Formats: sequence, C-alpha cells, structure tokens
Amino acid sequence: MTFTADAPLGVFDSGLGGLTVVRTLRACCPGEDIVYLGDTARVPYGTRSSETIARYAIGCARVLTARGVKAIVVACNTVSAVALDMLRIELDLPVLGVILPGARAAVAASGGAPVGVLGTASTIGSGAYPRAVASLSTRTEVVGQPAPLLVSLVEEGWLDGEVPRLAARRYLEPLIAAQVRAVVLGCTHFPLLQGAIEAEAAALAGHPIPVVDSASATAEEVATFLTERGLATARTERGRLHLMVTDRPRSFSDVAARFLGEPAEDVELIDL
Amino acid sequence: MTFTADAPLGVFDSGLGGLTVVRTLRACCPGEDIVYLGDTARVPYGTRSSETIARYAIGCARVLTARGVKAIVVACNTVSAVALDMLRIELDLPVLGVILPGARAAVAASGGAPVGVLGTASTIGSGAYPRAVASLSTRTEVVGQPAPLLVSLVEEGWLDGEVPRLAARRYLEPLIAAQVRAVVLGCTHFPLLQGAIEAEAAALAGHPIPVVDSASATAEEVATFLTERGLATARTERGRLHLMVTDRPRSFSDVAARFLGEPAEDVELIDL
Repeated sequence: MTFTADAPLGVFDSGLGGLTVVRTLRACCPGEDIVYLGDTARVPYGTRSSETIARYAIGCARVLTARGVKAIVVACNTVSAVALDMLRIELDLPVLGVILPGARAAVAASGGAPVGVLGTASTIGSGAYPRAVASLSTRTEVVGQPAPLLVSLVEEGWLDGEVPRLAARRYLEPLIAAQVRAVVLGCTHFPLLQGAIEAEAAALAGHPIPVVDSASATAEEVATFLTERGLATARTERGRLHLMVTDRPRSFSDVAARFLGEPAEDVELIDL
Repeated sequence: MTFTADAPLGVFDSGLGGLTVVRTLRACCPGEDIVYLGDTARVPYGTRSSETIARYAIGCARVLTARGVKAIVVACNTVSAVALDMLRIELDLPVLGVILPGARAAVAASGGAPVGVLGTASTIGSGAYPRAVASLSTRTEVVGQPAPLLVSLVEEGWLDGEVPRLAARRYLEPLIAAQVRAVVLGCTHFPLLQGAIEAEAAALAGHPIPVVDSASATAEEVATFLTERGLATARTERGRLHLMVTDRPRSFSDVAARFLGEPAEDVELIDL
C-alpha cells in the first residue's frame, strides 16, 4: 500500500490519555490532520491480561486503517509495551509506539546512571522499558515502578495538593533509593502530574531529577519520522482533529480538554 | 420457572468488589452454593454510560441464569442504580440489588437527619439513592458525593495511611458541611476503607457518624428473602463458591482474597 502525505495520521489509546501525545503533535506538526480513537468503553487496559490487550489493540488499529490513515501512533504505553510487534506484523503501514522515544529521552537525560520508570502494572510487568533502554545503552540500569493510582488521580482531575504529592512520593521512594538519575513518565496520563512528580523527586533525592515525558518525546519522533519518509503534509493551515470514542462518559469533555489543552469538539461515538 | 432451594445463588459485579457481598453472604447463609461472576475484562462500569452499563449487565445475568441459579444478587451499586428494573423485566427469576438495603440501613441510622452517599459517578448521577431513600422516608434528605479515587485506592491495596485518609476527607467534607448524620458506602469496594472513612468523618464532624455498608446490608436482606420465599437451602455443610471472571489480571488473587476474606480458589475464565 502507498499513502499520500495528505492522508491523516491515526492515533489511538485505551482512553483519553493519548490526547497528551496529540497535544504535542499539534504543536510539532500543526498541518497534519489527525484521527484519534480512544477506547473509552474498555479503558483502562493497564490492569488487563496481555491477550486481552492485544485483541483490543488490533480492533482499534483496524478502525483507523479503515479511515485511510498514513501511519498509526500507538499513544498508549500499555499497548506499546505488549502489542507493538503484533500490530506491525498485522498492519501494512508504519506503526510507532511511545516506549522507544521515552527510553531514548531517558537515556540521554540520565547519562548512563540508572533510569526509573513510572507506568501501569502491565507496562512495568512487560519489561518493555528495560528492553528498549538495553537496545540503546547496555550499561544503563532500569528500575520500574507500577503507579496505577496516578492514572486515577489524573482522571479525577486531582493534579495539585497533598494527595497527588503523597501518592507520587510513595511511588518515587523506591526509585530514588535505587539512585535513579532520570524518571520516565511511562503512561500518557502522567504529564499532567509532571509538576508534582518533579517536586517530590527533587525533595526525596535532595537535588533535581530530570522527569522525561514519553508523550512529548514520541510526538517529536513522529514529526521527524514523517519528514524523513516524505509522509509529512505540505499544508500550512491548521490540520483537522477528529475524535472517536467507544463510550462517552459523563465527564468526557472536561477530561478530554484537560489532556488536549484545547476544547474537544467533533467527537464521534463508535461501537467496537 | 420454578427453582429448587438447593440451586446456587448467582451474584455478579463489574469486577471483584462484589466479593464483599459474597463475604457477608457466606457468613449469613453458609449452606448456600454461590456462583459469582466478576466482569473483570470490562471493569470499571462506574465511569461508563447508562446504555453501556445496561448492555453489560444483561450479558452477566444471562451467564448466571445459564448456570441454573435460583436468584441473582446484583452486587454492584452502579448496575443496581441504572439497570435493576431492566434486569427484572428481562429475567424470569428474583433479582436483588444493593441500593435499597443500603438506603434502608442509612435511614435507620440517621433517624430522619440527612444521609450522605459515597459512590461512583454513575451511581451518584443516577439519583438511585435519593429515590430509594424517598420510598422509605419522605423527610430524609440525601447528599451524594462521587468518590472514584476510593475505588482505585482499594484496588491498589492502599487501605491505611495518609493517602486514603486525605482522599476520604476530601470527599467527606461536603457531606459533613451538609450536616449528614449517616454515610452510606454506596460502592462494594468501600467497606475495605470503612476504618479510614469513619475516622475522617468523626474528625470533621467532631462526633461519630455511623458509616453504613451497603454490601453487608444487602447480604442480610438476601438471607431473609431466601428464607421467606422458601428458597433457602436446608443443607448444613459449607456451600461451594465458584468464581468466574472475564479476564484474570496479574494481581487477581491478592485483590480477590482481600475482598473475599478467604483464598480465591476454583476460578473459571469465561469470554463475554
């Protein structure tokens, strides 16, 4: 199959967290049309089995290919961790994940010292970050920490105050004890808690610890990838953003706007 | 259809929280065989639309009827709140929910003063508790508070310490400000945080506030219902407990045992 540079870019996530990737994409490559699918009826993926995650992921990807996308960004650490190879085998177009860009940014930030990763139980349990880091730097140690409560805090909109700080501290303690010199936000929800995580990491370590956002790192790599492959649009007007969700919960608009940093309009409800 | 008293009792929930109802049922009516279905592949229901919840609920109920149950206990506040009438219309056997027993216990505990309810966004948004309380006592005011983060805390096993206390306090503040004299735990996850909720409610109010557990209240009403309808088993040996789940996440055994208060054995994985 061949794709035109003016075809839309497809992005999917288990829910709305992947909109943090879209937010950076809209800044890095503003001319691109983007079709986003959030599987809000089956969110969260992070606590499910690998088999279930893979089955859900291929379903999401097929919705996007049916919309004629030129490439797919898997804006979900959990899916990137457990199902990226399967998607690349099954699909006849470029598929980009969030793990390798996050790992690359972390290795650069840590300078060879240990790297900590905060993510869902599935992402951490998959060992995807240690594998990605090992492919970039054989001497860099990786310390993973499942941090499921941070997902819930972001969805609830509790981004400031004592509860997010205490939760972040509890998850960061083992990482700081292992003397990590950079922390990767290995879940697309976590950029919204970056302030709290940076503050607690610095307080625990006694010095600043770089906190690397896999969502931003991915969007930047996608922009480079599209340009290098001749797949970047030449259009200069602002691209369209079309959102699809599999369920539209009560708090949808608030949560989507929080992740996206712009109003979430043009939303289509699809069945999956 | 007629049912024999020795048929099993069916219980379902969106996930494993309903095992808090099973735990009390095993104490109240130890001879009953129980078949439990936790829809762990699609948990949580509490953030989904009413249409989706209703569709999932009828699917769960049909799995139980196919196993020959004599009655169904909907051990999920969200499903009880939005889909109980639909289930009673569709199914040809007794269907019992958790809302009315919880409301009854709360009205008894508050003595006519306002009652507070902690639950998921769907449960609170449905207005099911105010309707149930109004059917029992026209003068009792109900103040609802969505408390989604408490669900995540229980699933994470953070039952003690500062984070659950601060989260409970934040959700209780508007209830205490509205001068409630009893708080209903309107989610089957919350009994595991009962200690933290009682402590914070008393600290905020300056005096003890009864905290009513809808799971226990329901199990007690189910036991009475079975006896009154001649549906209680006469067997005296301890009943069998058969668990079915739609996905078996990594932390399944820990979480299930925490809710159930006994090891979670004899678990069947089903597709739904």
